[in-house]
Amino acid sequence: MSERSTKDSQHSTAGAYVHPGEEFTRDTAYIEDRIVRDPARAQLPEGARAWPVEAGRYRLVAARACPWANRTLIVRRLLGLEDAVSVGLPGPVHDARSWTFDLDPGGKDPVLGIERLQQAYFARFPDYPRGITVPAVVEIATGQVVTNDFPRITEDFAKEWTEHHREGAPDLWPAALEEEMRQVMHHVYTEVNNGVYRCGFAGSQQAYEKAYARLWAALDGLEERLATRRYLMGEHITEADVRLFTTLVRFDPVYHGHFKCSRHKLTEMPNLWAYARDLFQTPGFGDTVDFEQIKQHYYVVHEDINPSQIVPAGPALENWLDPHGRESLGGSPFGEGTAPGPVPEAERVAPAHTPLPA
Amino acid sequence: MSERSTKDSQHSTAGAYVHPGEEFTRDTAYIEDRIVRDPARAQLPEGARAWPVEAGRYRLVAARACPWANRTLIVRRLLGLEDAVSVGLPGPVHDARSWTFDLDPGGKDPVLGIERLQQAYFARFPDYPRGITVPAVVEIATGQVVTNDFPRITEDFAKEWTEHHREGAPDLWPAALEEEMRQVMHHVYTEVNNGVYRCGFAGSQQAYEKAYARLWAALDGLEERLATRRYLMGEHITEADVRLFTTLVRFDPVYHGHFKCSRHKLTEMPNLWAYARDLFQTPGFGDTVDFEQIKQHYYVVHEDINPSQIVPAGPALENWLDPHGRESLGGSPFGEGTAPGPVPEAERVAPAHTPLPA
Repeated sequence: MSERSTKDSQHSTAGAYVHPGEEFTRDTAYIEDRIVRDPARAQLPEGARAWPVEAGRYRLVAARACPWANRTLIVRRLLGLEDAVSVGLPGPVHDARSWTFDLDPGGKDPVLGIERLQQAYFARFPDYPRGITVPAVVEIATGQVVTNDFPRITEDFAKEWTEHHREGAPDLWPAALEEEMRQVMHHVYTEVNNGVYRCGFAGSQQAYEKAYARLWAALDGLEERLATRRYLMGEHITEADVRLFTTLVRFDPVYHGHFKCSRHKLTEMPNLWAYARDLFQTPGFGDTVDFEQIKQHYYVVHEDINPSQIVPAGPALENWLDPHGRESLGGSPFGEGTAPGPVPEAERVAPAHTPLPA
Repeated sequence: MSERSTKDSQHSTAGAYVHPGEEFTRDTAYIEDRIVRDPARAQLPEGARAWPVEAGRYRLVAARACPWANRTLIVRRLLGLEDAVSVGLPGPVHDARSWTFDLDPGGKDPVLGIERLQQAYFARFPDYPRGITVPAVVEIATGQVVTNDFPRITEDFAKEWTEHHREGAPDLWPAALEEEMRQVMHHVYTEVNNGVYRCGFAGSQQAYEKAYARLWAALDGLEERLATRRYLMGEHITEADVRLFTTLVRFDPVYHGHFKCSRHKLTEMPNLWAYARDLFQTPGFGDTVDFEQIKQHYYVVHEDINPSQIVPAGPALENWLDPHGRESLGGSPFGEGTAPGPVPEAERVAPAHTPLPA
């Protein structure tokens, strides 16, 4: 763990979200361990440890509500890692201490046997000082958290876990595009994924207005980029699309009103909206999205910006299934790969929480 | 004044807006005096007094932010009562005691010479126990409030002040339609004008969801009604349109997010949105609307639902000037009358607060 800022981040559980007078700054200090094919040769940040890829050894803990966790659920589906890496799903509403397994029978994760994700962090670091974040990968046998470094988790799923990928798994990190992809993803992260939080947790009118201008400049740029490209990097889905999608799918239900990202709804940005629908309707994307949990999370947890904790009944969601027309831009979602199969029964989103047909 | 509920209403200044566990109930007890052509023959509620119509005798106090006050500003413009009834404009942000004239030089209304509208209420009733609401009509010579009974104020402007109407003033209360109009306006009031507040000030999730369902049922009905009628009552603008418009124009800037009326934006309801634009672009409607004051009012005053008091920068407003296409439904805005002339220089909305061209 590095010694950077300890300000709370949204997917953590640290209490007050708005700091009066201040801009929002995300705590980006994570447990930087990695799970890799060849631990002896892994490149690691100082102090981090390498763990071996091994089917059945780890459990991914990923609340559906959280956009950073949502990335891991999508990538796991796209690559077909369901059998190799099981998943634990904390409920949408956590307290100041931890995400909890309140949706599971007896309030315990059935594999890890814990009630609070915090227990896995403390099993590894008894004095763990930061927010308890999802996604986290936990070693099942020891109950210890291995890593919560979310951008690394999905990259390692794609590059290190290849022997466990399903047949037809797409190449989410095409080598020829990687350099440009990293630039695009960095931009999407700072300006959009984190940009919406910068609006929502601004501690002053001035900080908010600056954040709002910055967010919309980025969204206008992406709207233009997607006018001629079916996906962010061109013809096929890559990790960059996964990362943009998880913010777009939360935009109208949460960020538009709750975070005051209100210049337009996503539904009023024609290319971004069609692009988001295209992905939503692609197996592996929409089938990981629980709109009800998403809304509950933000509107209940951020009591300092929504003291009543009332969760909006809107927006209408049927239009996520409207034809998107993006096929006319060419390309194919999975390149030389194929779509993932149906979602395992136990992992399906509750029918009342999604517009997808059962 | 009757002895009904003293719960705060939004255009008053009474402090806490959300009562945990409760449905929102509007205080509908007003000062029921009237200003009429023939005081001796006026029909009045028990205890109320009749005042004579007289040009220059009264001042209308109407904050631009407030939807109930906005009605009076529109009707005054449509009927051309600007010279007969002057207007005082409190700023958007009031405190728990009163609307204030903080936008005027020296913080005083230049005609009434008061800083707080409360002073006019106390000049009449030293122990006035209710919220200090706009719109209010004040007798200039005595500085006493005459009435704050907003639906009566606009009806009397139309029916009692006829000798002061401009040439070409429209008939906002056509006798042949009045019975149906009263039903439509009652529906619009209970389900829409007040319906958005019932959502926003709901004291429980259950009360909110009930209010939300009721609001959208009404909006769906109006969406259908306006598919074949250019205006609510058919061919021409009536008071019923004024009353619906003041809620619609606040819908996306405020009610959609702040009050969680979020099934759709107004921009996503094709008939209501075109109807609202049609009216907005009609002289007398859009030229009374100050979007900035509207947003400041709700987001700053309702601290219990927006503790940060940060005012959203959105939504984009240029689209209020998009062609509405409603001419194809026939009708004409002013019937046998004509459009009002330009807004007097001193009463123009600040250019930065409106999409209308200067």
